[in-house]
Amino acid sequence: MRVILIAGTTETARIPGISAAGADPEVMALTPSADAELLTYGTPIRTETVPVSPTGCPTPAVVTRAVRDLIGFDATVLDAGLTAPTAAPTVDIGADPGENIRETTAVETPESIATATAEVVAALPDTELMLAETIPGGTTTALGVLTALGERPAVSSSLPENPLETKQTTVEQALENSGLDRGGCRGAPLEAIGAVGDPVQAATLGAIEGAVKADKQVRLAGGTQQLANAALARHAGIKAPLSVATTPYVHEDDSAAVEALAADLNVELRVTDPGFATQEHVAFERFAAGEAKEGVGMGGTLALAEEADVPMTRVREQIITRYNQYFGEGE
Amino acid sequence: MRVILIAGTTETARIPGISAAGADPEVMALTPSADAELLTYGTPIRTETVPVSPTGCPTPAVVTRAVRDLIGFDATVLDAGLTAPTAAPTVDIGADPGENIRETTAVETPESIATATAEVVAALPDTELMLAETIPGGTTTALGVLTALGERPAVSSSLPENPLETKQTTVEQALENSGLDRGGCRGAPLEAIGAVGDPVQAATLGAIEGAVKADKQVRLAGGTQQLANAALARHAGIKAPLSVATTPYVHEDDSAAVEALAADLNVELRVTDPGFATQEHVAFERFAAGEAKEGVGMGGTLALAEEADVPMTRVREQIITRYNQYFGEGE
Repeated sequence: MRVILIAGTTETARIPGISAAGADPEVMALTPSADAELLTYGTPIRTETVPVSPTGCPTPAVVTRAVRDLIGFDATVLDAGLTAPTAAPTVDIGADPGENIRETTAVETPESIATATAEVVAALPDTELMLAETIPGGTTTALGVLTALGERPAVSSSLPENPLETKQTTVEQALENSGLDRGGCRGAPLEAIGAVGDPVQAATLGAIEGAVKADKQVRLAGGTQQLANAALARHAGIKAPLSVATTPYVHEDDSAAVEALAADLNVELRVTDPGFATQEHVAFERFAAGEAKEGVGMGGTLALAEEADVPMTRVREQIITRYNQYFGEGE
Repeated sequence: MRVILIAGTTETARIPGISAAGADPEVMALTPSADAELLTYGTPIRTETVPVSPTGCPTPAVVTRAVRDLIGFDATVLDAGLTAPTAAPTVDIGADPGENIRETTAVETPESIATATAEVVAALPDTELMLAETIPGGTTTALGVLTALGERPAVSSSLPENPLETKQTTVEQALENSGLDRGGCRGAPLEAIGAVGDPVQAATLGAIEGAVKADKQVRLAGGTQQLANAALARHAGIKAPLSVATTPYVHEDDSAAVEALAADLNVELRVTDPGFATQEHVAFERFAAGEAKEGVGMGGTLALAEEADVPMTRVREQIITRYNQYFGEGE
């Protein structure tokens, strides 16, 4: 089992009010680089601080790292358009940061990113892979491709109140600027990514293609962004079984219609509850209130912990240990 | 414990007869990229084949990987000037491939490479580090810096017969072209690297500096290239205990004077014998005949196996398993 973190950025995240994956737009660009360092080393190196939302919710990388502390899965980071330097080792797949989808082109070279990723992933020695993502603004680009593909335009948010209207307006402008109608990219996933998507989607689509081609079991770890990636795979003609492992916070988000979207796409949905609502601690408070919800493979690695028979009390203990290391003693 | 593989290239390797780290000069440039993939995944990915010397000696990465299979140490690869694409994740330290030392400048930016590496290494969570290298032509650049520093100009070779004369002529030309005398860079290690060294040396010097500054235990895994790096560290004013873990093949190489060089530099030398001479198998034959000798942390990871109480018979079994995977059934 190898977890592949596909880490990138999009200028779309700079649209005010779109993302909570960082305390403000400037530091948000650091978040994927920091997440990669946390997953790899358990501590920020070049990025110096652990990302938090504007209200103090820690990055879900804290959860993923805590699970890695306990069960020790292999992890590999792909550079799908990072802007900030990271000390995490990354695989170069030739991806640049994504542009703002309101511009004409969101991703310059989706096909070459997908092809490079597919080739690497197909050749990996592992028979089981889990794909994770970190990209601020990713639910907006997810809404972008779902709309362009003509799929149910339902996405979640890292904010407690989903800024759906802002996202919808952004996507409408984006489609218009690209000369596309809703559903205008049916069967053309790379075109959808190029027009209104992001480089993490291109790499994830390639990773799914490479894994399926090489007969590997592949699971997507995340929320509606991964459902959007599954939609891209379906529109690329991939008929293999696909599953998305997520958190209750995404699952219970009424603005996201996760069950319906998964059913549309014939994608198996797995929800793993870390029990944050059952234990009072500042590390869990913002998650339990519906912030962040997902990211950096949180729901998927919680599923891995469950499969390894690690009790969620133990997972929470380790999250508290890491939280205290990063932010000082909480309570 | 984390093994840091510092992987790079130098145009110096193209000088005919200098290196056996690849079947011919063209594929030699792939060797560090392939070594990084073997260490990371246990299989070549983008590089497609496992490097061999012109006479069929496998890269020492096979040994290092076999030890990793058995004891599972953490490994991180730094990109210290790779030319060929690798699917191994690498840390970017801003290094370009090294130039031929016979040109005026061998490494354009040794200081920035060293500084970037020192910052990353100092911030790592590990308290014990082992530094390994892979760079074809590295013993010639090692001879270059030892000569420029005024140290004992003794280096080993990946070839069974050390082409010392070719190396010496190359270094003499290199010093002349840089306007340097023997010993002209005493106390100026970055100048030595810039004139007659390679980017792996710059990164290794930085890694030693970062580790020592952060009070980490640091060991160098390799042969005379690591002794040259220790010399660079001594000339940078580093007085901390330094040790080099190597193989009997380097230790017994009369052309290399390893004991004397280690004594000059106040470096502890550790030699771990994998017992290749005691077991007939094509995987061991060329090593036992004195080819390759070292590289990719071979001697250091053998020491780690010994410290983990893994018997060398078990290490040899695992090397055979990997060898057969790469080259088909040997005997």
